[in-house]
Amino acid sequence: MKYDWVIVGAGLTGATLAERLAVERGARVLVVERRRHLAGNAYDHYDEKGVLVHRYGPHIFHTRDHAVFEYLSRFTTWRPYIHKVMAEIQGQQVPLPFNLNTLQALYPKRLAERLEQKLVQRFGHGARVPILKLMATDDPDLRELAEFVYQNVFEGYTRKQWGLAPEELDPSVTGRVPVVVARDDRYFTDPYQALPADGYTRMVERMLDHPRIHLLLGTEFKEVEGSLRFKRLIYTGPIDAFFDYLHGPLPYRSLRFTWQNLRAVRVQPVAVINYPNEHRFTRTTEYKHLTGQESPFTAIAYEYPEAHEPGKNDPYYPIPREENRERYQRYREEASKLRGVFFAGRLADYRYYNMDQAVARALKLYRELP
Amino acid sequence: MKYDWVIVGAGLTGATLAERLAVERGARVLVVERRRHLAGNAYDHYDEKGVLVHRYGPHIFHTRDHAVFEYLSRFTTWRPYIHKVMAEIQGQQVPLPFNLNTLQALYPKRLAERLEQKLVQRFGHGARVPILKLMATDDPDLRELAEFVYQNVFEGYTRKQWGLAPEELDPSVTGRVPVVVARDDRYFTDPYQALPADGYTRMVERMLDHPRIHLLLGTEFKEVEGSLRFKRLIYTGPIDAFFDYLHGPLPYRSLRFTWQNLRAVRVQPVAVINYPNEHRFTRTTEYKHLTGQESPFTAIAYEYPEAHEPGKNDPYYPIPREENRERYQRYREEASKLRGVFFAGRLADYRYYNMDQAVARALKLYRELP
Repeated sequence: MKYDWVIVGAGLTGATLAERLAVERGARVLVVERRRHLAGNAYDHYDEKGVLVHRYGPHIFHTRDHAVFEYLSRFTTWRPYIHKVMAEIQGQQVPLPFNLNTLQALYPKRLAERLEQKLVQRFGHGARVPILKLMATDDPDLRELAEFVYQNVFEGYTRKQWGLAPEELDPSVTGRVPVVVARDDRYFTDPYQALPADGYTRMVERMLDHPRIHLLLGTEFKEVEGSLRFKRLIYTGPIDAFFDYLHGPLPYRSLRFTWQNLRAVRVQPVAVINYPNEHRFTRTTEYKHLTGQESPFTAIAYEYPEAHEPGKNDPYYPIPREENRERYQRYREEASKLRGVFFAGRLADYRYYNMDQAVARALKLYRELP
Repeated sequence: MKYDWVIVGAGLTGATLAERLAVERGARVLVVERRRHLAGNAYDHYDEKGVLVHRYGPHIFHTRDHAVFEYLSRFTTWRPYIHKVMAEIQGQQVPLPFNLNTLQALYPKRLAERLEQKLVQRFGHGARVPILKLMATDDPDLRELAEFVYQNVFEGYTRKQWGLAPEELDPSVTGRVPVVVARDDRYFTDPYQALPADGYTRMVERMLDHPRIHLLLGTEFKEVEGSLRFKRLIYTGPIDAFFDYLHGPLPYRSLRFTWQNLRAVRVQPVAVINYPNEHRFTRTTEYKHLTGQESPFTAIAYEYPEAHEPGKNDPYYPIPREENRERYQRYREEASKLRGVFFAGRLADYRYYNMDQAVARALKLYRELP
């Protein structure tokens, strides 16, 4: 028995490629996965009280990409869901992204009204104004507002999230935080926002449920590479690990979660509450908001960012700094020398992907495969 | 990479052997499993409404074997549970096994009292009297009672369960059905009766969660046998399939389930209700009784016995007939000619095992392995 393809990683990228190759091309595929479960960081499961949770942090599927949504809809029905986030600021829970409702909640009434008028006049109703742009205006009121948002919403959160001061990160990160000139509390504005009705794990199980797809779990690819018989390889793991850290490790930020299960219908007003300023955790997630599950219990995850140490915790977020992208480019050059080996996914591309982007990337690679 | 052991099957037998070999002997083990999940027929999972159910029928762990209970307790805590079953007889739901409470529910008061006195006098309080023994008494009342139990509790159920008349089965099956001379509604009398607190699947996941154990799922062993590198083999699948049905197929009875999920706390008085006489299903199981889960939903499975067809449904129960045991012996002889290949488990031994028996069998084989 020889596999046509070995695919390393059973996350969304690997599952999409395995499914396409087995179904469309009739290929025999072996998926090798380090963990003992499918679905990568999108993995969801029921906790000890029967509450459905996401082990690796909240995953909210949202996309503008009709083709990606249609593709995944072959494997799941959906629960429509509009994601809402609040931040605890000055002891109040207020909507995020910072919008006119947030302004009203935190500012004295008169001042809030004046700022609202100025924002609408200058940027138009519905605009999403990056705070860097707001800081650059000639209006002292708006500059003061930008400063307030920067200090109370962004700065502390960034330090916790990345372990770096904002100025140590690429301006692309800092610049993106918007002030929304509308009473619009939606966290995402994509036309498709939903969760798989039976969860991400079931969806990925269905993607991989094909007689030509075998699953080798709990297995480091490096351990079995020499003994597997296959023609071509798709690698969705960390590209630096594939090349045995030849050019040094690519830095990632990692996360740690602590869990609480309470006898309560719900304890948070929305799924996610950010804590930019107090506490060591960055945010808490109450999963029943996402899943719509009815249960007498509810599960809350507290999320603590931490440094990534290979072998000790999981790599989550590539750290957006120019020097890291340069190091990744050196690995990219190594990769381009290989024949019959293809790289895709967040860890192989050293690039943060939302779930829809991961699937789009996999579908694109699939079309380009020999 | 060469595995010390390949183990075919990730049920309780395979999981026990894999765990022992990896942990105690430091062996490198590959578990090959046809299905895409662990735990064999003990597999439990959350249904679409978040209710924990057993996909392959109700599994109630019960044992007198202290060593087996201690062994499994390394991988789970337990929810104590006393199993109760009722049967719908003459339109009433009455306790099983047939005991003094059942007698009282179904018989006119005076007659019930007379029978109760006779049973206690003749067999003693607390006796479990096989109905064949009851039929053989010289007391016409007791013979009539035995006839009633045979016809109303046993005969119809047996026909549905096995697709055979009771006389076509080994007397060992017929003879075992007891009349219990006590007000004791317990279905099992073993000192240990409990379910794994987080379910069977999690328990087996923990058994197999070891860096030296790799899991190859969704894979027929025959498909990959030639390409795997390993020293020794433990096979827990159907022994006739292993030998390519050389001596013909070993007959099994199979099951089919239909599922209902209702918005209700509970709908049955006990976990299992048998229908010996009416309907095509033999029994219904309401899983929340077993798991103790709290949920606004409840899941019921209707169980339909059916003929086993290899490749179409799963083999459940070896059919207890002499000719089948003889055929199994011929496979057993083939097996004894092989070196470095070991057989164990319900399908390899062609013998119905309760879960504790499967684990005891695996632990015994482990001690005998070279």
